[in-house]
Amino acid sequence: MTKAYAAQSETSELAPHPIERRELRSDDVAIDITYCGVCHTDIHYAENDWGGTIYPVVPGHEIIGKVTAVGDNVKGFKVGDSVGVGCMVDSCRECSSCEQGLEQYCLNGMVPTYNGEDLHDKSVTYGGYSEKIVVSDRFVVRVPEKLDPAKAAPLLCAGITTYSPLRHFGVKEGHKVGVIGMGGLGHMGVKFAKAMGAEVTIFTRSESKVAEAKRQGADNVIISTDDEQMEAAAETFDFLLDTVPVQHDLNPYINCLKVDGTHILVGLLEPVDPALQAGALVMKRRVLAGSLIGGIPETQEMLDFCAEHNIHCDVEMLDIQNINEAFVRMKKGDVKYRFVIDMDTLKQS
Amino acid sequence: MTKAYAAQSETSELAPHPIERRELRSDDVAIDITYCGVCHTDIHYAENDWGGTIYPVVPGHEIIGKVTAVGDNVKGFKVGDSVGVGCMVDSCRECSSCEQGLEQYCLNGMVPTYNGEDLHDKSVTYGGYSEKIVVSDRFVVRVPEKLDPAKAAPLLCAGITTYSPLRHFGVKEGHKVGVIGMGGLGHMGVKFAKAMGAEVTIFTRSESKVAEAKRQGADNVIISTDDEQMEAAAETFDFLLDTVPVQHDLNPYINCLKVDGTHILVGLLEPVDPALQAGALVMKRRVLAGSLIGGIPETQEMLDFCAEHNIHCDVEMLDIQNINEAFVRMKKGDVKYRFVIDMDTLKQS
Repeated sequence: MTKAYAAQSETSELAPHPIERRELRSDDVAIDITYCGVCHTDIHYAENDWGGTIYPVVPGHEIIGKVTAVGDNVKGFKVGDSVGVGCMVDSCRECSSCEQGLEQYCLNGMVPTYNGEDLHDKSVTYGGYSEKIVVSDRFVVRVPEKLDPAKAAPLLCAGITTYSPLRHFGVKEGHKVGVIGMGGLGHMGVKFAKAMGAEVTIFTRSESKVAEAKRQGADNVIISTDDEQMEAAAETFDFLLDTVPVQHDLNPYINCLKVDGTHILVGLLEPVDPALQAGALVMKRRVLAGSLIGGIPETQEMLDFCAEHNIHCDVEMLDIQNINEAFVRMKKGDVKYRFVIDMDTLKQS
Repeated sequence: MTKAYAAQSETSELAPHPIERRELRSDDVAIDITYCGVCHTDIHYAENDWGGTIYPVVPGHEIIGKVTAVGDNVKGFKVGDSVGVGCMVDSCRECSSCEQGLEQYCLNGMVPTYNGEDLHDKSVTYGGYSEKIVVSDRFVVRVPEKLDPAKAAPLLCAGITTYSPLRHFGVKEGHKVGVIGMGGLGHMGVKFAKAMGAEVTIFTRSESKVAEAKRQGADNVIISTDDEQMEAAAETFDFLLDTVPVQHDLNPYINCLKVDGTHILVGLLEPVDPALQAGALVMKRRVLAGSLIGGIPETQEMLDFCAEHNIHCDVEMLDIQNINEAFVRMKKGDVKYRFVIDMDTLKQS
């Protein structure tokens, strides 16, 4: 398996193309990257788990940096601004989804931050494990001063992926929200749901994680492998935010939803196995829903919400030279809760 | 298999209990039944398909009749009123569902119109294949004068089961609604969605049903067994009302939903097989939802809506003496679209 991301981080004698960023178009923002979060998706692309990786690949879609230049028509950003770039760098901008600010659901397909194809020159897009990036202003968000930029990086993926569905499906004060999974996404889900006024329960498989769940701010913890605890929780939740990215039995969780409750999937666990018991939806008018990251206006809203509520991601800082070790640790679930690369270490290499 | 429902309809020398209706309680309404629709559920109970049938059983939960007496505290009904009774005759009235008028989701369990247990005296409830019924006023609805009472009977189950989710999930003018299945429920779904201003498509397995689907008022027809037609319909529907009561592959239908589209199940098809592809929910923020009949206030709203929009059920009239034959025909899907028993034929027997 070619690991171009590693090759790039270990030598400064690279072919110029992946590092050189394009000349500024009129709507472009040039960014010096200061921090980049490490998402599990980065591993899947680096190792071509899903097929379709175009090597050399430069992963990274949780990008924080400073504006170094802007194109002629850019009004919203100026040199020196602290900005972020998430999972997308372009979309058609004309379809019904784009018109609603839901670029992630662009009917013509959004352009991912890396391993995508630029809509103008058909070049491959390269992500945030890099010194610089050039992105159209529509896909750049402002990072509020109150946020620690390193701890803000993972908000651009892990943050918006959990914030967006909680907002869209209507989590409000007094709701009971369960968060399934305690990883990078799950721990952000807890923070957001708490800040929205909900009573939050973490579902975890292991008794050993109860203390950590409470430290994360959960009001309650349910051991999902304990049938008695799961039965006792029947029909008590308004929302479940399911961040588990692998196949698991949805039925015991759906049983925990009240009438009109909503189980939100943000991981790709297809197909659903064991089989979904549809009667549990019908008998209580429950909803099973999915959600993918979030749109650009909502990403800005989320960052502002984080500044207002003093929310950040729990991170472990990483030198780019240790990225391979970080990948190994992430595969074991050994990170609390997101690695963030200090991009100065790339410049020093 | 005991067929008590048949025995009852074939002899007038019955034990008095099932036919005798209780003395009026202060909130009771006594009703002389004029018409009763025949629901597939009636067959399941009569033949004990689901277990739990208490014989003798008197099926029927699509009841229309005239008030003959009312209890001391009944304010909303008087002798001579044209009224209806649907699938429920009581509930706890105190839980959060009951407080919202969602008695079908009563947290303490609603009392079904037949084969249920009366909350006061623990007697078994008996349904509408009968001369009379006595029901608490909260569970009685008013039948608008404009409605043909025979054609209104199936509105109390087939009608409300399709009206309620279309309303609850927000079908409005301009939406594209697909109705899956062309039976008693499906044909009502078409009428309601049309009256709500939607463009309606019927999904049917057979080319032979296209003309009938158009006659029902469908703007379009898609042959669901034709992969090309299904592919062409990808991402074009806001709502799908799935009335198919047996297992079927949901995935090709969910693929027909737009971003934020909703697939509504009203049949009990559990477990979902073939497996649900959860990614199709996540990638487009789609929703899979269930819905069960409807609450009492909404049932009244539905009847008023039918009067306003001149909506009724397509029925075949039936003498009670032919109920067994009707059951046989229903099992073959041979009815357009609901049998309704003329209860005068019971009095004549």
